[in-house]
Amino acid sequence: MKKLINAPENVVKEALAGMAAAHPDLLTVHYDPDIIVRAGAPKAKVGIISGGGSGHEPMHGGFVGYGMLDAACPGAVFTSPVPDQMLAATQAVNGGKGVLHIVKNYTGDVMNFEMAADLAAAEGIEVASVVTNDDVAVENSTWTAGRRGVGVTVLLEKIVGAAAEAGADLASCKALAEKVNNQGRSMGMALTACTVPHAGKPGFDLPDDEMEVGVGIHGEPGRRRVKVAAASEIAEMLAGPILEDLPFKRGDHVLAFVNGMGGTPLIELYLMYNELNKILTGNGISISRQLIGSYITSLEMAGCSFTLVKMDDELTKLWDAPVHTPALRWGM
Amino acid sequence: MKKLINAPENVVKEALAGMAAAHPDLLTVHYDPDIIVRAGAPKAKVGIISGGGSGHEPMHGGFVGYGMLDAACPGAVFTSPVPDQMLAATQAVNGGKGVLHIVKNYTGDVMNFEMAADLAAAEGIEVASVVTNDDVAVENSTWTAGRRGVGVTVLLEKIVGAAAEAGADLASCKALAEKVNNQGRSMGMALTACTVPHAGKPGFDLPDDEMEVGVGIHGEPGRRRVKVAAASEIAEMLAGPILEDLPFKRGDHVLAFVNGMGGTPLIELYLMYNELNKILTGNGISISRQLIGSYITSLEMAGCSFTLVKMDDELTKLWDAPVHTPALRWGM
Repeated sequence: MKKLINAPENVVKEALAGMAAAHPDLLTVHYDPDIIVRAGAPKAKVGIISGGGSGHEPMHGGFVGYGMLDAACPGAVFTSPVPDQMLAATQAVNGGKGVLHIVKNYTGDVMNFEMAADLAAAEGIEVASVVTNDDVAVENSTWTAGRRGVGVTVLLEKIVGAAAEAGADLASCKALAEKVNNQGRSMGMALTACTVPHAGKPGFDLPDDEMEVGVGIHGEPGRRRVKVAAASEIAEMLAGPILEDLPFKRGDHVLAFVNGMGGTPLIELYLMYNELNKILTGNGISISRQLIGSYITSLEMAGCSFTLVKMDDELTKLWDAPVHTPALRWGM
Repeated sequence: MKKLINAPENVVKEALAGMAAAHPDLLTVHYDPDIIVRAGAPKAKVGIISGGGSGHEPMHGGFVGYGMLDAACPGAVFTSPVPDQMLAATQAVNGGKGVLHIVKNYTGDVMNFEMAADLAAAEGIEVASVVTNDDVAVENSTWTAGRRGVGVTVLLEKIVGAAAEAGADLASCKALAEKVNNQGRSMGMALTACTVPHAGKPGFDLPDDEMEVGVGIHGEPGRRRVKVAAASEIAEMLAGPILEDLPFKRGDHVLAFVNGMGGTPLIELYLMYNELNKILTGNGISISRQLIGSYITSLEMAGCSFTLVKMDDELTKLWDAPVHTPALRWGM
């Protein structure tokens, strides 16, 4: 195992210390329970929080800041955070307008966020939740009943964060989050496995000439394992199931997100974006907004995912609204 | 070789097509010769251009836009662009105020930019050049006489781009670029090699338990090959030679840039930033600005580099100035 780490058991806390040192203007890190809380957030707004296992950086801690998340709960690598973290985050951001939990559909995350929501409710904090489940690859998976929550989560956090910043109430934030999830679909693939520091060896075996199509963000099995193909074919393998599933239709405008899994260089992501753009154009679908980069990752896994969200004026305006977080920033 | 590509010979052009499709508001791509030109740049300013081999994305094309570069010249992977590209870029951005060439110190780049400058001068275009040579690892290297130009180049392009945007003349831009280069130092390391698409196999061999300290951005040999060490020790191996070289002194304020080589996940970069911050604090040096991410890469190489630039009010103001490029954006 080759990693830029000290002891495996300290990776998350040491990376959090780096976040705290780098971004004191944007966030504060609290330990035990570990949470990342936005600095100077106004109290008179709906609090937006998310969380999940670490190893997917910049998600979620890198999205804490103006116009996106008010707090994030980082679990151990590829491990759900515990309810204490979610409760502490909920308490930290509660300003009386309620708190929205954005939860990716993994059994541990869902269960623990539910428990935290119950505990918060018992304290009189109004909590609503949305569960993202945008991965079209498989219906059930290693740690998931139903579909997995993946790339849409990033885009949803931006869009709902903008609405909360603009004063939307809790019910509106929840409805908006459900809309984005319902209009979004994703699928990913891996060229290589990744190694959880504690485990010390790759999470799965992938021969030198094969790739996993439909892989999960923890290396969970996808739809099938096939020989490595050309970028144009890989793009078809990902875009095809996404387009069929919603389905996306001629004339649709989409936010297209080409995401790197952590070990994939940007030159390849732009090449994949070119392939995706050709496929969409050929289907009469136009990309009205885009995001290209490694935003929901799986440690050093090589590979990529596509996410498409069907856009309208409301979503476009919220996407374009100013944001200032460690990982996403524009308009300020 | 596992990569998200079609034919190796088309990687650069297809990635450029992705850039063009993604960022029509920021840039235009011209082919044969291949150049990336800022969209809608004002003519009445000094033109700022750079270039070099591809495979280091987002450098340089990802830095074309408001407040940074006016054009970039992407060569083949790890291969200098040709003078025709540099001449075309110079012509494209010339508005009568002169053009600054930002050149990393590699023999081919230096030679070809000199030739292009001569050709441009023959057409009456005033050209000045700065050569970055911030890598303290080695004095001469595979493709370099003197020190290699690495991470400072990114920071310099931001700072000088801001000055040009604010109306600085060519002599001032050149002097500023030399100041940043003189006040900046870098050093990098690799955990793994990378594979140039055309070559089809890794550029060098690195055993499973070793790392290359002082590696170049094309995988050129560094100072020494040693057993993989803890992050804290790796940080000392990089920061020590940087601090000694300028030398940086107690009381200095620095811009600290922790850069990923392309295959290193962000969680490790934040962990390394934490180590760097501890070392600097221990030396009485404070980080006044930071940049953390993969901005000058070596395809999918795993590893990182540190760059420090000694800051003053002038440089801080220019660093903070608005920028809007595909890879760096703030203030707008």
